[in-house]
Amino acid sequence: MSNHVYKQVELTGSSPNGIEDAVVNAVSKASQTVRNMRWFEVVETRGHLENSMIAHWQVTVKIGFTLED
Amino acid sequence: MSNHVYKQVELTGSSPNGIEDAVVNAVSKASQTVRNMRWFEVVETRGHLENSMIAHWQVTVKIGFTLED
Amino acid sequence: MSNHVYKQVELTGSSPNGIEDAVVNAVSKASQTVRNMRWFEVVETRGHLENSMIAHWQVTVKIGFTLED
Amino acid sequence: MSNHVYKQVELTGSSPNGIEDAVVNAVSKASQTVRNMRWFEVVETRGHLENSMIAHWQVTVKIGFTLED
Amino acid sequence: MSNHVYKQVELTGSSPNGIEDAVVNAVSKASQTVRNMRWFEVVETRGHLENSMIAHWQVTVKIGFTLED
Amino acid sequence: MSNHVYKQVELTGSSPNGIEDAVVNAVSKASQTVRNMRWFEVVETRGHLENSMIAHWQVTVKIGFTLED
Amino acid sequence: MSNHVYKQVELTGSSPNGIEDAVVNAVSKASQTVRNMRWFEVVETRGHLENSMIAHWQVTVKIGFTLED
Amino acid sequence: MSNHVYKQVELTGSSPNGIEDAVVNAVSKASQTVRNMRWFEVVETRGHLENSMIAHWQVTVKIGFTLED
Amino acid sequence: MSNHVYKQVELTGSSPNGIEDAVVNAVSKASQTVRNMRWFEVVETRGHLENSMIAHWQVTVKIGFTLED
Amino acid sequence: MSNHVYKQVELTGSSPNGIEDAVVNAVSKASQTVRNMRWFEVVETRGHLENSMIAHWQVTVKIGFTLED
Amino acid sequence: MSNHVYKQVELTGSSPNGIEDAVVNAVSKASQTVRNMRWFEVVETRGHLENSMIAHWQVTVKIGFTLED
Amino acid sequence: MSNHVYKQVELTGSSPNGIEDAVVNAVSKASQTVRNMRWFEVVETRGHLENSMIAHWQVTVKIGFTLED
Repeated sequence: MSNHVYKQVELTGSSPNGIEDAVVNAVSKASQTVRNMRWFEVVETRGHLENSMIAHWQVTVKIGFTLED
Repeated sequence: MSNHVYKQVELTGSSPNGIEDAVVNAVSKASQTVRNMRWFEVVETRGHLENSMIAHWQVTVKIGFTLED
Repeated sequence: MSNHVYKQVELTGSSPNGIEDAVVNAVSKASQTVRNMRWFEVVETRGHLENSMIAHWQVTVKIGFTLED
Repeated sequence: MSNHVYKQVELTGSSPNGIEDAVVNAVSKASQTVRNMRWFEVVETRGHLENSMIAHWQVTVKIGFTLED
Repeated sequence: MSNHVYKQVELTGSSPNGIEDAVVNAVSKASQTVRNMRWFEVVETRGHLENSMIAHWQVTVKIGFTLED
Repeated sequence: MSNHVYKQVELTGSSPNGIEDAVVNAVSKASQTVRNMRWFEVVETRGHLENSMIAHWQVTVKIGFTLED
Repeated sequence: MSNHVYKQVELTGSSPNGIEDAVVNAVSKASQTVRNMRWFEVVETRGHLENSMIAHWQVTVKIGFTLED
Repeated sequence: MSNHVYKQVELTGSSPNGIEDAVVNAVSKASQTVRNMRWFEVVETRGHLENSMIAHWQVTVKIGFTLED
Repeated sequence: MSNHVYKQVELTGSSPNGIEDAVVNAVSKASQTVRNMRWFEVVETRGHLENSMIAHWQVTVKIGFTLED
Repeated sequence: MSNHVYKQVELTGSSPNGIEDAVVNAVSKASQTVRNMRWFEVVETRGHLENSMIAHWQVTVKIGFTLED
Repeated sequence: MSNHVYKQVELTGSSPNGIEDAVVNAVSKASQTVRNMRWFEVVETRGHLENSMIAHWQVTVKIGFTLED
Repeated sequence: MSNHVYKQVELTGSSPNGIEDAVVNAVSKASQTVRNMRWFEVVETRGHLENSMIAHWQVTVKIGFTLED
């Protein structure tokens, strides 16, 4: 049980609403192809500017999930 | 007055609601034992995933406070 | 068109409300003197504590904008 | 021959026995789906504590392998 | 449209000719299996030496691409 | 339950036997004054040399533990 | 003479041709408004991908120049 | 003897006179509560500006001390 | 009042006398064109050597100042 | 006595047995040409993979030694 | 064979022509005194500016070579 | 002339007096065996504590010098 192996993938989620929502979008997208997700870590927070306003936030996360036996 | 000495402690707050709330929880907990807190710095933002959703955010902060004379 | 040159400036926005609002304040202030802003990147997230509460968030961003021909 | 392209994946192996064994477990798991592995690099060494003892080591490695033509 | 999610993969391209050519080789290889590539970032530049000369350059890039809906 | 707050302390354990043993020594020492330790992270691995041999390993870890309510 | 003060600005040059050309473009643009440039340092090398090819390189440099008395 | 365990605390000393004096102030303050201090490492050097002059230097150090048996 | 926005500029001061004096020179130069300077942070300490002696110290600082309304 | 000057060299030791043994090999090799070695610091841990197994560990250390008067 | 020990030296090559040529110059110079060079890693890319043009590129590399038995 | 190659060595100087003096000691020692030193960069500032006081400062510098033709 303690010998689990985890894989980490790096995704960038975007959202016009804010940081948390961008992360939720990345996790939601990952859930379409990955099971057993365990944790994430924010590695970069950027954003796109249009007309002097924040058009959307772009948050890069590493997502760790258990590799099944 | 300009010769104050500050100490920094490192705490990780968690919250299901988001980054700011996790920091508030860490600061609130620290206030039970530490006085004269002056600033904090976010050093890591992670989270725990359950059933493909964010169960809670885990934000690590360094909190600086004045050491009293 | 692909030979654009961009400049990056580093600003710290503050807000009592949270991280996103502090970034919005920095971008809004920059828009008074800079045109053609394209992106930003969060490089530091800190805050000021008063009476054991978060008085305001201080978020440092690099803002990139196109230098006009 | 010198134009090989390599891909790197990031895995976390765990083991109650120590750092080397955790890496071996990660490499062994990767070998189930990846061929032509060439090198690894340790990027993080952590562990889980239970009852004041090290329950298992968690070592994150980047593993590089040749993409076949 | 602003809610796109991107994935980043890490590849190392090699070339006897130089840095740019090594990156081109990595991107070209990635294009065999990945669509909608948007950007890359150079994360490491190394090389292999033989007989006191540069046998080939090895450049590691992160490549970001849009995950399709 | 998900609103736990954790504190991290930084200790350096030493041992003539190797890295794992130095970490065990640090954790063991910490257990004399700290309860509810949850994880550790290795942040530095050094050693002391005497007569051209490794006299002892010095491994610095951050140890995270739950602050009780 | 040894008490000169230098200022550093951060620019991103782009070019379809390669890294050196992108830096040349950044320096050339800077020369329109800044005199007495002394050195530069590459701080990031990225690029934009279109149709699985490198559309242009984007190289960020810090440029240092002497502030005149 | 070689199995000593050390703890590191992070303090910020300040002084109007300069970097060394700010470190001395931090060490002096630490000596009121900590014994067996062995080494320090400077991790950040900042300062406060008032009326275009340096009001005081703020130097953050990690101080390591032996945990007694 | 808590919504101030700060800008950071990066300067390198030099001096034959030492680190503090180099910083003072950078701050003094900045004061000719910038008002409301609040803090600085040392980001690099280098020096120039001539005839096996230190000809002058070169200290790079980021200086933060309030952008006026 | 307190004015000693130390030099640091960077070596990579390898071993099929593990991390500690690779460091021992590096230190042992260094002892053939360097006297008065005082400490080492691990700066990178990598390894070579052959047939999906760890052929040897490669550990890079900085070794510090006293320069004699 | 797998127990080789490597040494790394840090050189800065310069060239008016570009990054690759500066590295070639560093490697070529190293070959005058070092045998069995195996790899290099670029650790810094800078340049010298004169009259608003790039006078020469300065690229710092770490070069690894096998220490002979 | 612009094709000079430089080598960098890493030394740690110590002094009971302060940071600058520790660097002077390292440079002075280096001058016994190295000619044509051009620059240095401070990479670490530490110190040794005895009886709750700073016994000596230990400053690590990289020193660059021209390799002669």
